[in-house]
Amino acid sequence: METSSITSHKIVRINGHNAEELDDKLAVEEPLEIQIAFQSEGRKERKSISVTMRTPGNDRELAAGFLFTEGIIHSKSQIDGVANSPFDENKVVVTFSADFEPKLGSLERNFYTTSSCGVCGKASIDAIKTRSVYAHAQEDWVLKKEVLYRLVEQIIEHQNTFETTGGLHASALFDISGQFLMLREDVGRHNALDKVIGAALLAGQLPLDKHILLLSGRASFELIQKATMAGIGMVAAIGAPSSLAVQLAEESGITLVGFLKNDKFNIYTGHHRIQ
Amino acid sequence: METSSITSHKIVRINGHNAEELDDKLAVEEPLEIQIAFQSEGRKERKSISVTMRTPGNDRELAAGFLFTEGIIHSKSQIDGVANSPFDENKVVVTFSADFEPKLGSLERNFYTTSSCGVCGKASIDAIKTRSVYAHAQEDWVLKKEVLYRLVEQIIEHQNTFETTGGLHASALFDISGQFLMLREDVGRHNALDKVIGAALLAGQLPLDKHILLLSGRASFELIQKATMAGIGMVAAIGAPSSLAVQLAEESGITLVGFLKNDKFNIYTGHHRIQ
Repeated sequence: METSSITSHKIVRINGHNAEELDDKLAVEEPLEIQIAFQSEGRKERKSISVTMRTPGNDRELAAGFLFTEGIIHSKSQIDGVANSPFDENKVVVTFSADFEPKLGSLERNFYTTSSCGVCGKASIDAIKTRSVYAHAQEDWVLKKEVLYRLVEQIIEHQNTFETTGGLHASALFDISGQFLMLREDVGRHNALDKVIGAALLAGQLPLDKHILLLSGRASFELIQKATMAGIGMVAAIGAPSSLAVQLAEESGITLVGFLKNDKFNIYTGHHRIQ
Repeated sequence: METSSITSHKIVRINGHNAEELDDKLAVEEPLEIQIAFQSEGRKERKSISVTMRTPGNDRELAAGFLFTEGIIHSKSQIDGVANSPFDENKVVVTFSADFEPKLGSLERNFYTTSSCGVCGKASIDAIKTRSVYAHAQEDWVLKKEVLYRLVEQIIEHQNTFETTGGLHASALFDISGQFLMLREDVGRHNALDKVIGAALLAGQLPLDKHILLLSGRASFELIQKATMAGIGMVAAIGAPSSLAVQLAEESGITLVGFLKNDKFNIYTGHHRIQ
């Protein structure tokens, strides 16, 4: 089952002295429950891991990406299948491979300490770097600054729901020649990024070390944390980065660009990758 | 101890063919651990409730507001004191009154189901309404639409850190004549709102039923949930609301305005309060 990412709602639009009743488009926000199914001591187990407020669409990618960026799984091979629940459009079940048993004791800790929520443990940058299988981005490439100039216009072309509703964040992936690869949207910027990383994981494309991640808004610690987990080499944000985002990008070897607009941007870390 | 909300970082600014090295200002993002101290069966207990990524400043308000909007406390009288840790600038301890013992069994559930994280249970609107002590906003007032026109310019006047860093969300409170009351900023929009609600709680000003809450960005479900907990009568957002935000505002009797800019805005719910 698929639910729509846009819904309509009757509003009153005020424009100076003019008041008009009309149908407006809203970005859909609905809870998604992520469940895992696995074998433990020969028995089948099932556990609810998270409920995240998301925009429907690419839910299986979101679930896989969430489990990966939270450090619960470390490779595609640990996943046997990802399925929408036939009974509930707001539930996805990720079935683990028979030989992979998640460390359940650490699950709750993981969840508390790193989840998409702004609830993130002691913000131990070291711990994040230890947990990532691609802890440090590759160093062996350089791109011309003109490549960055063309990224934003490309996501505007692809970002349909945002244009209609004004209500969605986007994460987009490019190769280092500036070639557009994919875009995902969501009311939650962490979900938009988990959808991108989940899609890459399921397609066997990780690490994303020779890629540029474009963020439609600001770059927070949490987003750089997820980028670090996927081994992303360069992050370009249209908005501002936070202090801790810059610090983590620096320690992870990520080139971090902010305030990207036309031919203007700031390089916060890793400027050796930009000619 | 107070840490600053702004820090500086050396960047390279690209502007067409020009590259310039300079010191840039960043919005600080640091973890804040919220602890509660209370008595249980005669013994003193202490428990860590949450770690949220926040911009330092107004931390005690943030802690009090978080506990209130998460439904862990229900009134100012349940708080004996709120103190910054003398040893850790990223920790606040909220001491409960001797006769108030939080329901610890429900704490974890509360946390999972409603926290600031986009992790929010079954999005049961009914459950939120049941938990709020001010479940339904008062109906007995009306304002002229011109009052809304002047809100945004007032927060721009007061929003210092945003202007410097471009990196902060703001929540601001006005009375229904449009008089500015307070503004709080944070890298996390849920934190900015918790700071406002916490300040009002500690000042004995709840419910905020004859107030307008202005949000610098979009209106998500989570923000309307917090507004519902504080009994807020009207929410005006500069950005777009999500579908579930509109639904909850409707059921909570909140007037919800979006895309507020100069003399233009959309009324999503409760338009009877706007003349």
